[in-house]
Formats: sequence, C-alpha cells, structure tokens
Amino acid sequence: MENFTFHNPTKIIFGKDTEGQTGAEVARFARKVLLHFGGGSVVKSGLLDRVRASLKAAGVEAIELGGALPNPRVALVREGIALCRKEGIGFILAVGGGSVIDSAKAIAVGVPYSGDVWDFYEYTARPERALDVGVVLTIPAAGSESSNSSVISNLELKLKRGLTNDLLRPRFAIMNPELTYTLPAYQTACGSADIMAHVMERYFTNTEHVAFTDRLCEATLRTMIAAVPLALARPADYGARAEIMWAGTVAHNDLLSTGRVGDWGSHGIEHEISALYDVAHGAGLAVVFPAWMRFVLSHDVARFAQFAARVWDVEPDFQNLKTTALEGIARLESFFRSIGLPVRLSELGVGDERIGEMAEKSVVKGNGFLGNFVRLDAAAVREILMAAR
Amino acid sequence: MENFTFHNPTKIIFGKDTEGQTGAEVARFARKVLLHFGGGSVVKSGLLDRVRASLKAAGVEAIELGGALPNPRVALVREGIALCRKEGIGFILAVGGGSVIDSAKAIAVGVPYSGDVWDFYEYTARPERALDVGVVLTIPAAGSESSNSSVISNLELKLKRGLTNDLLRPRFAIMNPELTYTLPAYQTACGSADIMAHVMERYFTNTEHVAFTDRLCEATLRTMIAAVPLALARPADYGARAEIMWAGTVAHNDLLSTGRVGDWGSHGIEHEISALYDVAHGAGLAVVFPAWMRFVLSHDVARFAQFAARVWDVEPDFQNLKTTALEGIARLESFFRSIGLPVRLSELGVGDERIGEMAEKSVVKGNGFLGNFVRLDAAAVREILMAAR
Repeated sequence: MENFTFHNPTKIIFGKDTEGQTGAEVARFARKVLLHFGGGSVVKSGLLDRVRASLKAAGVEAIELGGALPNPRVALVREGIALCRKEGIGFILAVGGGSVIDSAKAIAVGVPYSGDVWDFYEYTARPERALDVGVVLTIPAAGSESSNSSVISNLELKLKRGLTNDLLRPRFAIMNPELTYTLPAYQTACGSADIMAHVMERYFTNTEHVAFTDRLCEATLRTMIAAVPLALARPADYGARAEIMWAGTVAHNDLLSTGRVGDWGSHGIEHEISALYDVAHGAGLAVVFPAWMRFVLSHDVARFAQFAARVWDVEPDFQNLKTTALEGIARLESFFRSIGLPVRLSELGVGDERIGEMAEKSVVKGNGFLGNFVRLDAAAVREILMAAR
Repeated sequence: MENFTFHNPTKIIFGKDTEGQTGAEVARFARKVLLHFGGGSVVKSGLLDRVRASLKAAGVEAIELGGALPNPRVALVREGIALCRKEGIGFILAVGGGSVIDSAKAIAVGVPYSGDVWDFYEYTARPERALDVGVVLTIPAAGSESSNSSVISNLELKLKRGLTNDLLRPRFAIMNPELTYTLPAYQTACGSADIMAHVMERYFTNTEHVAFTDRLCEATLRTMIAAVPLALARPADYGARAEIMWAGTVAHNDLLSTGRVGDWGSHGIEHEISALYDVAHGAGLAVVFPAWMRFVLSHDVARFAQFAARVWDVEPDFQNLKTTALEGIARLESFFRSIGLPVRLSELGVGDERIGEMAEKSVVKGNGFLGNFVRLDAAAVREILMAAR
C-alpha cells in the first residue's frame, strides 16, 4: 500500500425530497449565487422551479446561466466567469449531471484567475483559489459531485481535458434518487458504465497489498451489476436508483483509490473519442474498456482472474487463469451490451479514419505515454482502438 | 434505503513516516496545543519525542497532559479542561489510541462549556462548540480518529457513556501503520474485534434496499479476517497492518451506515461490562456479539445466512438457512478464539453476580430498551449475558 492523503469534505445530503434543502445549504455560504444548469430536463421536470423556490425561501438571489451541454464547453465557462465577475457572485450552484458540475467547477476556478481558464486545462497554470460550488445532482455517472476533477471540451482546439485539484471539491451535494427516474434508459446505462469505469480504473493497479480497496472496488461493481438491470426494468425503483446514485459517488470520491495507483488509460483514450465525435462518455468507455483489458491482460493475469471470480462469479480454472480472466472480460462486455450500450467503435459511428489521430493525441499529456497499470504509447493505443472497431 | 447526510471532513494522512507531518498540520490551526497522550508505549517507542520535535520545528508550543487510560476517565478530562483554560489553548493533539482520542474530544467540548463536561455524557446538555482536535493514531480499533463519538468512563458513578456529535470529528488523523508493529498481540486482537464489531453493528439492520452498504460491510469484514492472522503471525507485516488500520477507520467513519439504521445493542451491553470490570472493550465485544447474534437470529434468518455465506464462505444450505446462519456465527466465534480473544464472560473474569445490574443499566439510556435491529429489554440483555457465561 502506498502512502496517501484522503480528504473529502463534501457534505452529502441524500434521499427523497432533499432538493428542498438547497436554499438552506447555499445560505451557509452566500446570499447571491450563479445558478448553473443544462437544458430542458431540469426545466421540464420542475426541478429548476423547486430549486429556485428553495433559494428564494432562504433569501438567496440567483443569477441564472443555463445551456451547459454534455462534454461541456469552455466557451460557456468563459461566459459564466464574466457573469460572476459582473454580478459579484461568490458561489456557483450546479443543478444537473457531471457536465453541468464540471462546467461550474471551471467557472469557480476561472473567476479569481487573471488569465484564461483554459490555461488550467492545458496545464500551463495551476489554480490557487476557487469559488465555492454546491450541487443538486440529477445524473449518477461522473462522480463530479464530490470529486476533485473537472473535464472540459475546447471545440476550437478539438480538445477534451481534465483538471484535478482539491479546490474543485463541492461544498455539498444534494442527491435525490427520485430525480433519476426520468433519465432515458440509454443515459442510465451510459452513466452506469462511467461509474463502473471509475472503479475499474482504480482496480487495475500494480500496487501490492491493496486487499481492502480491492474488496471495496469489487463491492461497488457487484452493486452496479445487480442494480442497473433493475433500474432499467423499472425506472421508478427507488432502491435500485438509490444504490446506483450512491455507488456513483463512492466510485469517484477517492476512497477506492486510497493507497493505490490507478490506471486511467481507458479514460484517456475515451476522452479523445468524445472530443472528436461528441459521443456519450459512458458509451465510449463501454467500447474502450474491454478492448483495453484484452490488450493488457498478460501484464497481470492473476488480477484479471480475481476480477473475473470476485466480480463476475466466474468459477476459476486454477490450471488456466487466463481462461478465467478472459471469461471475466467477456462477461463485462456482455453486461454492457445487455444494458443497451455499444461495445464497438462502429456502433458509436466511429470509423477507422481518425484512429491514428486519436492515438497520437491521447499520449500528449503524458509525454508520449498513457496509463499506469500498463504504460501505453501511441502505437499501443492505436492497437486497442483497432481491436475495438 | 433511508435518507441520510454523510459529512466526514477529517483529513487522513496515511503511511510510513507520516508522523513527521504532525507539526505542519497542527500549525494550520494553532500555535499552542494541548499534547494529550496515555502511558508508556508512546514514550518508550520514541513517538512522543518525534511528535514533540515535529511540533517544535513548526513553531508550535505544546503543553503536555499524559496519563489517559483505557476506558478514559472523566477526572482526567476535567484536568485537561482546566489546563486548556489556564493556558489559553485552542487545539488538542491526541497521540495514542481511541482512549486518548476520546479523552481529547471530551476536553475539546468541555473547554467552551460553562457547566461540567459530564453533562454531555449524561445527555442533560448538548455541546454547541468545541476546540479542534488532531490525532496521531497508534492503535487501530475505536475508529475515533475520524468518528463523531467519544466514550468516557465515570468511576465514581461506575458509568461508561458515549457522546455523538459532529463537532467531535477530528480535523486530521495521521496514521502510520508502522506504529502498530509493537502492539501486544492481545491488543491487536482486541482492536480488531472492535473494528469488526463496528461493521457488524451497522450490518444487522431492518432497513431494506441496502445492497451497496451490505457489500461494503462484507468487504471490510473479509479484509479483517484475512489481515488479522497475518499481523499476529508477523507483527511487522506492513501490508497487513496497513489494511487493518485503514479498515478500522472506514469501519467507523459512517460510510458503512449511510442510509441504514444500525443496531448498537452489543456495544451497549459491552459498555456495562467494561464499566464494572474495566476489561478491554474489544474483548468484551468478542464475548457479547456471538451471544447477541444467537439471541436475535430468528428475527432475520436470511440476513444471518447472507452474513455466513458472504463473509465466512459458508456454503449455503438453501433448505435450511438457519443451519447456514448458525454456522456463520460459529465461525465468527472461532475466529475470535483463534486470534486469542475470550468468547465467554468467565474468560474475562466476569461472574454471574452482577449480570442483573448490567442488564438494568444497559437499557437506561433507551428508556428501558436497547438496540434497533431487535429491541432488547433488560430481561433480554440478561438472557444474552447468561448465555455468554
């Protein structure tokens, strides 16, 4: 086990009707907020109105900025920064899923910074201050509600980049599983793949003596495997929705990576896909992860066999752990397919023509390499993408 | 799943040599601290000197108060409160195990309170403010390093009482597993039983749809079952010591009880034993828990069968879940015995003569009842204690 620091002070307020507490929570920090959201669903569902009413009842003035999109854009972030400065706003309330939250976090670090916020995502500057962020979560997926990261897309540069900094952890996250009843099945599935990917990125590690976090990871994956089909079959199954929502937070709040080095290669590869093709992140991960697994399998067959046995109930063939390991990967792929996700690039509408470009771009941040469990160069990423066609 | 709030802002600094960071962490909060500790082991091991040096290097003045005992006493707490007031101290640094930390927390809530600190433990007053507390942990057991509770004994009244309040969560906890190498085997075992008991108190619940936290609990128990024998066989096994130490924190940081109502009957019963007999808390729990389980088994045989199958690898007899359930309890008892713990009151030196008294006292706080999974009255507690003889 590696030395680690774990510090996740986000206050989670979880359960039915909890959005009614939004105003009171915000009022602990500010009397004027930027109310940031995406498109139609929070309007149609009436959630935005309930949040507005809660803010008003608590005496909090809200300046609104809607329009955050999946794969959130730096252009809107810049708009939000200008608005906060103009209005003298010190707190951002994000109502939505990971995209809205990531956009809110970017605004939060951009406001007190004299340069352009994209600098942080290009790694030419590091944030030293940030406004406080609060969250009303509507989509279990990104884990951004208590994570220290934000992923933003720059359409001009065709880049999608992540920033990680403890300044980015929200002050609170209000999580009502009922708000997820109306998620389309595909979005539920994409979010679930993202959650499972967050666990698997942490699971595949070279760090030894990580028995406890291994088991916590396995517990989270098994929970998802049981709950997602239930939620898809009965969208208003509170228990299943609640399990998914809470697992989604724990999957990415850093508990599961304490003392171990995660891989994050599949995320890096997927970011290049969704930067070029604007596909759902979870769908991209469902395509990339099994291909990545088969490519790196020989690096640690025992770990993949453990994954197969403990997560997927594969009866281990102790004479041939590779068979066991491959069966685990096959079951992951079948699971993704069973919940309606693509498992091939072609199903995402991604052809061969830009695979080389994506492979090259994916290793830029790491000076030619990507991933920790197995260090991939551009040629290796290309091979994974080719296998995922 | 029940609605819940989860907010655990304690910063965990975990790993080798981390005690060297103590001064720097304290200096974020205060320039003068009460350095609170217990007896000989932190002195003998040189830890106290290293902490003193770290504080000095960070420019922090330390006023010292040693002498905290297992089952920490309110008398020393009162002494600490007076010392903090006299010296104008605003931060308590606890160096030790749960007893020292609980004592530090009691001092922390007592200093700003005009009445006697025992009021909080008699539930005649509620703390509204507290000094900040920091921890250098030496014994994985109580989970007090990031919990919101403190258990204090009042020798004059022969009472042991717990206070729970979010003001009690330490600001930081420094956790170096190497510091636990020198723990006597019996203390390692007692601490491990306490950790497992914290999980089991949460596991046995009537709340439905708690699949995720069930699995997190099972993951934590399985980690302990694997790691404790390794640590006992090789006291300087860093991996095993680290797993136990981190599991001990997670067992009691409230993650495992999110959305579910725990039982806490066994803790209530054990507190009466250690209040009268001053036995180690973990040893008392090893005696009480299997007896409690057999007494309440019929309330939810399926849950006990799940516990047996998932935690203890009992092959389920689906035609007779009670057999399966009983085998799980038997394996728990065997495990406690295998790590050198008592499993009968007689082994603790506790006879029959005060069983009635303990049973009566255990239900005082709950107006005649104890526990949530099964509500026990004094007669039921008496029966459990009689079965544990």
